[in-house]
Amino acid sequence: MQKLLSPTQATTTRERLRDYLHTTRLLGSIHSTLYYDQNTVMPPLGSPWRGEQLALLARQIHQRQSCAEYQELVAAAESELGAAADPAAARNLQLLRQELERQRRLDPALVGRLAEAQARGYALWQQAKAARDFALFAPALTEMVALRQEQARQLAEPRSCWESLAQGFEPDSSKQRLHELFQPLRERLPALLEQARSLPPLPPADWDLSEADQDQLCQRLLADWGYDPSRCQRSRSPHPFSCTLGPADFRITTRVVPGMPFSAFLASAHEWGHSLYEQGLPRGGDHFFPWPLGEATSMGVHESQSLFFECRLARSAAFAERWHPRFAAALGRDPWGDPERFWRALNPMRAGLTRVEADELSYCLHIVLRFELELALLEDQLPVAELPQRWNDGMEQLLGLRPSNDAEGCLQDVHWSEGLFGYFPSYALGHLISAQLAASLETELGPIEQRIAAGEEAPIQAWLGRQVWPLGRSVNAEQLVERVTGQRLSAEPFLAYLEAKLARLAG
Amino acid sequence: MQKLLSPTQATTTRERLRDYLHTTRLLGSIHSTLYYDQNTVMPPLGSPWRGEQLALLARQIHQRQSCAEYQELVAAAESELGAAADPAAARNLQLLRQELERQRRLDPALVGRLAEAQARGYALWQQAKAARDFALFAPALTEMVALRQEQARQLAEPRSCWESLAQGFEPDSSKQRLHELFQPLRERLPALLEQARSLPPLPPADWDLSEADQDQLCQRLLADWGYDPSRCQRSRSPHPFSCTLGPADFRITTRVVPGMPFSAFLASAHEWGHSLYEQGLPRGGDHFFPWPLGEATSMGVHESQSLFFECRLARSAAFAERWHPRFAAALGRDPWGDPERFWRALNPMRAGLTRVEADELSYCLHIVLRFELELALLEDQLPVAELPQRWNDGMEQLLGLRPSNDAEGCLQDVHWSEGLFGYFPSYALGHLISAQLAASLETELGPIEQRIAAGEEAPIQAWLGRQVWPLGRSVNAEQLVERVTGQRLSAEPFLAYLEAKLARLAG
Repeated sequence: MQKLLSPTQATTTRERLRDYLHTTRLLGSIHSTLYYDQNTVMPPLGSPWRGEQLALLARQIHQRQSCAEYQELVAAAESELGAAADPAAARNLQLLRQELERQRRLDPALVGRLAEAQARGYALWQQAKAARDFALFAPALTEMVALRQEQARQLAEPRSCWESLAQGFEPDSSKQRLHELFQPLRERLPALLEQARSLPPLPPADWDLSEADQDQLCQRLLADWGYDPSRCQRSRSPHPFSCTLGPADFRITTRVVPGMPFSAFLASAHEWGHSLYEQGLPRGGDHFFPWPLGEATSMGVHESQSLFFECRLARSAAFAERWHPRFAAALGRDPWGDPERFWRALNPMRAGLTRVEADELSYCLHIVLRFELELALLEDQLPVAELPQRWNDGMEQLLGLRPSNDAEGCLQDVHWSEGLFGYFPSYALGHLISAQLAASLETELGPIEQRIAAGEEAPIQAWLGRQVWPLGRSVNAEQLVERVTGQRLSAEPFLAYLEAKLARLAG
Repeated sequence: MQKLLSPTQATTTRERLRDYLHTTRLLGSIHSTLYYDQNTVMPPLGSPWRGEQLALLARQIHQRQSCAEYQELVAAAESELGAAADPAAARNLQLLRQELERQRRLDPALVGRLAEAQARGYALWQQAKAARDFALFAPALTEMVALRQEQARQLAEPRSCWESLAQGFEPDSSKQRLHELFQPLRERLPALLEQARSLPPLPPADWDLSEADQDQLCQRLLADWGYDPSRCQRSRSPHPFSCTLGPADFRITTRVVPGMPFSAFLASAHEWGHSLYEQGLPRGGDHFFPWPLGEATSMGVHESQSLFFECRLARSAAFAERWHPRFAAALGRDPWGDPERFWRALNPMRAGLTRVEADELSYCLHIVLRFELELALLEDQLPVAELPQRWNDGMEQLLGLRPSNDAEGCLQDVHWSEGLFGYFPSYALGHLISAQLAASLETELGPIEQRIAAGEEAPIQAWLGRQVWPLGRSVNAEQLVERVTGQRLSAEPFLAYLEAKLARLAG
C-alpha cells in the first residue's frame, strides 16, 4: 500500500492537529465502509455482530472528538492562529471548536441512553408499522422526545430545542426563517396541486423492465454524466444512498422495484448528484479531506444537488426526448408513442400519501407537515398520543388526502424512530436551493432544456463544479445561495419553476 | 442493533479476559471486512486510503495483543486456573500464552520494518514479474530473508529459523517431519506423472460459458451443499478466497476466467469447503468466537477441507455424471458426448509450470520444490541470485519441465514477496490430510463415489461436521488426523487415491 495521505513528520501544532483529524477521519470512513457493506452485501444474520463493530467504532470516534488531548490541540491551534490568519485556517478552527463544544457538553450517559433508545425505537417502529398500530410505537417516541429535549438542554445554545437538534443537519438554521421560507409553499402548492388534477391522463403504466435492462440504462446514464469506475462504485441496496469512503472512493446504491421501472433510473440520477457534490468538495490546502472545510455544508445543499440531477435534468422534457427511444428499445415496444408522453410518465403530478413517492409538486407539503409536527412535539407539548390525529388532519388540509391507517400515515418514515428531529426541512430546502441555483445557472448558460437538447450536460456540471461544490463549509447553506445567486434564498424560483412546468404539462 | 454477543457485566478474571478478546476480535473482523470490500467492490483509486485504514487497525490490534493490560489479564487467568482446570479452559490459556509470547518478543521496530519491506517487496515483485526479470526483485527478497531471519532470532524458540516462521501457519510443525511426509511424494509422483502421459487424449476445450451461466451453475452447486443466504454471501474478486466476518457472516468469492469455464465452478467448491470448516468450528462455552479454541487449527487442515470438496467431491466421476447434463444444458450442446469424457475434462493430469493451475497429480511437486528452496534460502545460505537457476533445475527434476523465463518460474507466486516463508507446505499437507480423512470416512460411510451417485452428500458433510470441524484448536493438524483416523498422518492414503484415480482414468 502506498501512503499518499498520511503525514508522518508533524512538527507544528497545525500539523499535529491535521494528523489527529486524519486518524479520526480514517475511523469515520471505516464506520462508513461497514455501513455500506451492511446495506449492500452483508447476510441478515451478520447484523448483531455488525452492530457491535459499529458501536465500538462510534465509541472510539466520540472519544477522539472529546478527549483532553484533542481539546488541548484545538486550543493550542487557536492560540497560535493570530490576528492576520488565513481565513480558511480560521474557519476550520471555528468549525472544529463548534463541534468540540457540542461533543463536550453532552453527558456520555445521555449519549449511551440515546443509542439504546434509538435501537429500541427503530425495532418498535418496525413492529408498529407492520401492525399498522401507532400505539405500539408511542412509548418509544415519548421517550425519544424527552431524551432529545434533554440533549438540547445540555447543548445549552442560544436556540430553541428544535433548532439545537437541527444544527447537525442544517447549521445556523432557525425555525423562524424556515417558517418564512415554507409559508409560500404552504399557501401556493395546494392550489397548484388542484390545478394539476386537470392535466391530461398519464400514459398506461402497464410495462416493466428486467433488472438487467434497468441496470444497463442506469449504467449509460452515469457514463454520460462522467461516472469514473476508477473512483466510483455502484451497488444494490434496499434503500438508495450515496456515501464517500475515502478521498477517491465514492459509492452509490440503487434498487430495482418491481412495477416501478423508472425508480432505479431516477434514483441513479439523484444519488449521482449527491456523489458529484462530494467528489467536487475542496481538496487542497486547508480544505483537504480531514478538515471541516472539505465537508458538505448542509443536508439541504446536499439534497439540492441530488434533486438538481434528478428533477432539473432527468425529469426534463429535453432529457425525455433523448431517453424515450432508449427505454422503448430496452422494452422492445413503445407504450408512450411520443417523447412528450414519455416525459409525462416521468412527471406524474398527483398528490399521494407517501413522501418518498411524492412528485415535485406535493413533496414539500409532506415536509411542511413534518416540520410543524416536530415543533409541536418538541416545543409545544403536543402529546405523542395525539400525533396520528394531527397527522391525518394535516394531510387532509395540505394534500387533500386522509391516510386510512398509521402505516401510511405518521409511521411511514424511519426518522423519528431514531430521534432524527430537524432533518426533514433539509429535503424541502433542497428543492428551493436547487431551483434558485438553476435560475442563476440559466442566466449564465442559457436554458437548461436547451443545453440538454444539445447534449451539453458537461457545461452544466462544470458550472456547479465551479460555483457550488468547492465552497465546502466556508459558507452555510443560505450564505452559499447568496454567494452564488446574489439573492437571498426564497421559495420564488422554485414556485416559478413549478408553475412553468405545470403550464407546459397542461399543454 | 441487538447486542447478542457482547457481554457487559464482567466480574471474574475469565469474563474480563473474554470481553477483552471479544473486542480484539471485533477489530480483527473489521479489518477482514475492509479486506473483503477491497477485493470485491472498492474502486482502484480507493487503495491508498484503504491501506491507511488497514494499517491503523493493524496497529490497534497489535497493541491490544501485546500491551501490559493484556499481559496482566492473561497472567491473572493463568494463576486462577488451578490444577483441576477444565481442559478447554487450560488449552485456551495455553494458546493465548503462546501467541502473547510471540507478540512480546518481537521488537516493534522490526514489525514496522517488516511491514515496509512487505509493501516494497510486493511492488517490486509485480514489476519484476511483468518484466520477467528476477534481478529487479532480488534485492527486496534478500532484505526480506534477512528480516525474517532476524524475526526468528527474536522469537528465540527451540526451533530452526524456517520452523519458527512456519508456526503461524502450521503450529507444531517441524522440517524433519515434513521431509518425512514429502519424501514419498518426491519419489513416487514423478513416475505417476510419467504414467499419466499415456492417458487417452482430453476432450477438446473449445467451449466457454457466459458469466450468467457459470454463476447459475455455481449457485446450484452451493444450494445443493447447504448454502444458507441468511449467513453466507457470494461475491466476485480477482482471486477466489473465503473469509469469516462474524460468528454468523461467512463470505466466499470466485472469479470467471474467460476460456476456463470450470474455474469458477471448482473454485466455488474449493472456497465452500473452507467456509464450511469455518461454519462448523466450535461455538459453545470455552470455544466461543473470541477464544482460540473456536479457531481453525492450521492452514493445512483448512486446505484439506477445501480440497476435499473440490477434488474428492466436485472432480469425482459420480459428480461428473450428475453435472455433465447440467453443463451441456447451459452450453446448449454436448462437446463431451458422455459423462466419462466430461469427468476426464475435469481431471487433466498434465504437468505444467504453474502451481495454481496444477492438477492433483503434480500439485505437491510444486510444493516440494518451494519447501526445499525456502529452507535453502533461510537456513543454508543459498544466495538469492542463484534462486532462478535452482528453481529451474528443480522443476526439470521434479516435473520434467523448464520455465522459459522467471515470470513462469520463481516469480510466479506472491508469497515470498511478502515474506510468507513456511506457508507453502500447508497446501501439500491439505492434500495428504484430505485423503487420509477421506479413507476413514469411506470406512464408515462406504465409498464416497457411491454416496455421491445416490445424491447423498449430506451424510458426508455431517461426518466432517461431527469428526473434524468441532475440534477447533483443541488439537494441532497431526493430532487431528490421529484423533479422527486412528493413524499417524502419512502420504500413503493420498498416493493410493491418486493411483486408483489414474488407473480409472487409464481404463
